[in-house]
Amino acid sequence: MELIKQYIENNKQRLLDELFELLRFPSVSADPKYKADILKTADFVAKKLCDAGADNVEVCATAGYPIIYGEKIMDAGKPTVLIYGHYDVQPADPLELWNSPPFEPTIRDGKIYARGACDDKGQFYMHVKAFELMMQTNTLPCNIKFMIEGEEEVGSSNLAIFVKENKEKLKADMVLISDTSMISMEHPSLETGLRGLSYLEVEVTGPNRDLHSGVYGGAVANPATILAKMIASMHDENNHITIPGFYDKVVELTAAERTALNNAPYDEAEYKTDLGVDELWGEKGYTTFERTGTRPTLEVNGIWGGYTGEGAKTVLPSKAHAKISMRLVPNQTSDEITRLFTAHFEKIAPKAVKVKVTPHHGGEPAVTPTDSIAYRAAQKAIKTSFGKDPIPTRGGGSIPIVSLFEAELGIKTVLMGFGLDSDALHSPNEKYDIFNYYKGIETIPLFHKYFAELSV
Amino acid sequence: MELIKQYIENNKQRLLDELFELLRFPSVSADPKYKADILKTADFVAKKLCDAGADNVEVCATAGYPIIYGEKIMDAGKPTVLIYGHYDVQPADPLELWNSPPFEPTIRDGKIYARGACDDKGQFYMHVKAFELMMQTNTLPCNIKFMIEGEEEVGSSNLAIFVKENKEKLKADMVLISDTSMISMEHPSLETGLRGLSYLEVEVTGPNRDLHSGVYGGAVANPATILAKMIASMHDENNHITIPGFYDKVVELTAAERTALNNAPYDEAEYKTDLGVDELWGEKGYTTFERTGTRPTLEVNGIWGGYTGEGAKTVLPSKAHAKISMRLVPNQTSDEITRLFTAHFEKIAPKAVKVKVTPHHGGEPAVTPTDSIAYRAAQKAIKTSFGKDPIPTRGGGSIPIVSLFEAELGIKTVLMGFGLDSDALHSPNEKYDIFNYYKGIETIPLFHKYFAELSV
Repeated sequence: MELIKQYIENNKQRLLDELFELLRFPSVSADPKYKADILKTADFVAKKLCDAGADNVEVCATAGYPIIYGEKIMDAGKPTVLIYGHYDVQPADPLELWNSPPFEPTIRDGKIYARGACDDKGQFYMHVKAFELMMQTNTLPCNIKFMIEGEEEVGSSNLAIFVKENKEKLKADMVLISDTSMISMEHPSLETGLRGLSYLEVEVTGPNRDLHSGVYGGAVANPATILAKMIASMHDENNHITIPGFYDKVVELTAAERTALNNAPYDEAEYKTDLGVDELWGEKGYTTFERTGTRPTLEVNGIWGGYTGEGAKTVLPSKAHAKISMRLVPNQTSDEITRLFTAHFEKIAPKAVKVKVTPHHGGEPAVTPTDSIAYRAAQKAIKTSFGKDPIPTRGGGSIPIVSLFEAELGIKTVLMGFGLDSDALHSPNEKYDIFNYYKGIETIPLFHKYFAELSV
Repeated sequence: MELIKQYIENNKQRLLDELFELLRFPSVSADPKYKADILKTADFVAKKLCDAGADNVEVCATAGYPIIYGEKIMDAGKPTVLIYGHYDVQPADPLELWNSPPFEPTIRDGKIYARGACDDKGQFYMHVKAFELMMQTNTLPCNIKFMIEGEEEVGSSNLAIFVKENKEKLKADMVLISDTSMISMEHPSLETGLRGLSYLEVEVTGPNRDLHSGVYGGAVANPATILAKMIASMHDENNHITIPGFYDKVVELTAAERTALNNAPYDEAEYKTDLGVDELWGEKGYTTFERTGTRPTLEVNGIWGGYTGEGAKTVLPSKAHAKISMRLVPNQTSDEITRLFTAHFEKIAPKAVKVKVTPHHGGEPAVTPTDSIAYRAAQKAIKTSFGKDPIPTRGGGSIPIVSLFEAELGIKTVLMGFGLDSDALHSPNEKYDIFNYYKGIETIPLFHKYFAELSV
């Protein structure tokens, strides 16, 4: 522990400067115009892995952006940790809402403001530096493999292929990912699950053209009204989702799990004030943590139809649309829920309209066991560096690759994230606290240490 | 009659060219960006009235767009007809659905395709040309006054003020308007009633910012879902409107009125085929004619909220909006219905959201007598030019100024429209048959002739 702190202290400025170099690359995977920058970012990551002491470093070509691989095999007999991260970032717009340039990292009261500061450059780079630390101090207690991709923000489709084709190379005992959040530095936590996703777009067509709402109003089905009725019918008065079979595979949490989950600090008044709402709204019989972490949901992400411009247009629209996504919990599968939704939506559509359902993309839910050696190692590492046991939490978001690794490599993941919900991921003024960055570099070697010890 | 046909024959092309010139002005009153075009349209109309032989032509300034006035007083002793029309048009979007540019009139098998071709440029311009015809052939049998406004599609609020302030100038025995439809050229008809209108915009606000639908989904009210529920609740299972007090003043038609109304030719199969729907949809216990002509309705004219772009964005929107309009029948008043809607909408909003209701514009319903000299003159004119008695019908649309004229000027209106329901008013590919245009120019002088004769 002293050794770790000493190393960080001695290299404090350099560890920060290197992260800043990485953050200056505008590696926006969603926008082709950044292609050259993304390739430069990939080379930078590969070089830093080499410098840190990794062997067999490769910039692995894919149909999209390259995946950086690197490894250090100490001894085939020792356990192996696979580190996953991504060097691509979300688009930075709306640019006008940034207080400092998104690709010129700027420090304001102890926080690094830059696109990717937390998601995920700041977090995966902690692992590169922690690896360097262990190499430099001869304390790497296990084998380590890195897989850093460049398409996480656009669906990781080439990663799935890469993993399928490189099972041997990626062979490991567990996956370690820092791409999630803690409750706070005072309340360190570990995410023990993520929700899956089923995202669809629906179209309701009434008459074959927009009609004059006076001439035809009252005699022809209005697709906007019908869509509203269909959406309204998908939650009952207790906000349970009404799609037949939707909950069939959902496992209720045990009393113990619920207690553990709800032990996490939560101030409802503060939560409501932050969101500017007078009342919360959700499935009857569940707390906010349960609603966002352990229950499946159905949300309208977008809705549109008819005249949406200035002023008034007395039109009875021909079509109405909505983007609807469902967050899934363990045992629900994206394909099945997409099928159930589609069948239900088509079934409840009145004959006076035609409906079309188009699936966008999906991802599977995942829970990480809290009794595994890997989880216990993470727990112990955080306890040592933060002086407190981490609180197990359930993340409401989705990281589809977690279930991919389980399916293809047969290994579980530990989500040891050091971000905060307030880091504004995907939003303007994304930030990452310098404190969290160093804290991560300090905690990661402890994780490897305990994982190696507990694995014996 | 011969004289009329001859004049039209001799000027056929010019009569069409002038209408095309008028149709090329994008005089969209709902969108401020067309202001300059609308003012040009006003000047064009004024010039054409002068050319046709009108005296005292004025472009009368208002708080909004100008009203064009012009007159020809033959003899104070003769009856006076006030012609009303409007030179503004509905927005043209969605542009991509037009087969030819909305403001470049194009003829396809005998039909003029352009925004405003029928509503109302093509129809009011028939009166300007019929007036020219009567002047050129010295057959104007009565006094005539023109009042052509530029804000009909946005509620005619400044017309109301103009009429109140110019009662003497507008003094007349009746108002003649061509801004409605006939059943068909084989079944000429005259509308004897119009519905009123109450048009509002609603905004539902949930959280104070767009949220990540994974992190917050399930715990916070989604304004799009809430708006859908509120809209859905406004019609019951029989498609009756659920706003308390909404039907209180509605007078049921007598059995005789219903029979007369339903005697008009109507082919449901054809009606459905034209609209491309498998089933009709409306208030239980009423026929299509009754639903569109004699019953009040509530329609969603537009709805929007959240992410409506390409692909998928997992956002829980901060706001959702809708434009909602209600068509009113005799004894309902726009102000009262607007009040009832607003009170109800605010009452049914859950505490988890905030709602805002903004009235756009309204208009009162009107019924025109079928026993007046003016109506009989119109009947006779149509009988002469079409060879058939017109069928009395109830229009579903609204021309708020009809009740305004009755209240302020104490005179009744005759709705002698030459459009067709299939003219796609307010829709892409609005059209007006060349045949109807000429037929109107032929019928209007006959109306003036008979009105003068019957008035003696």
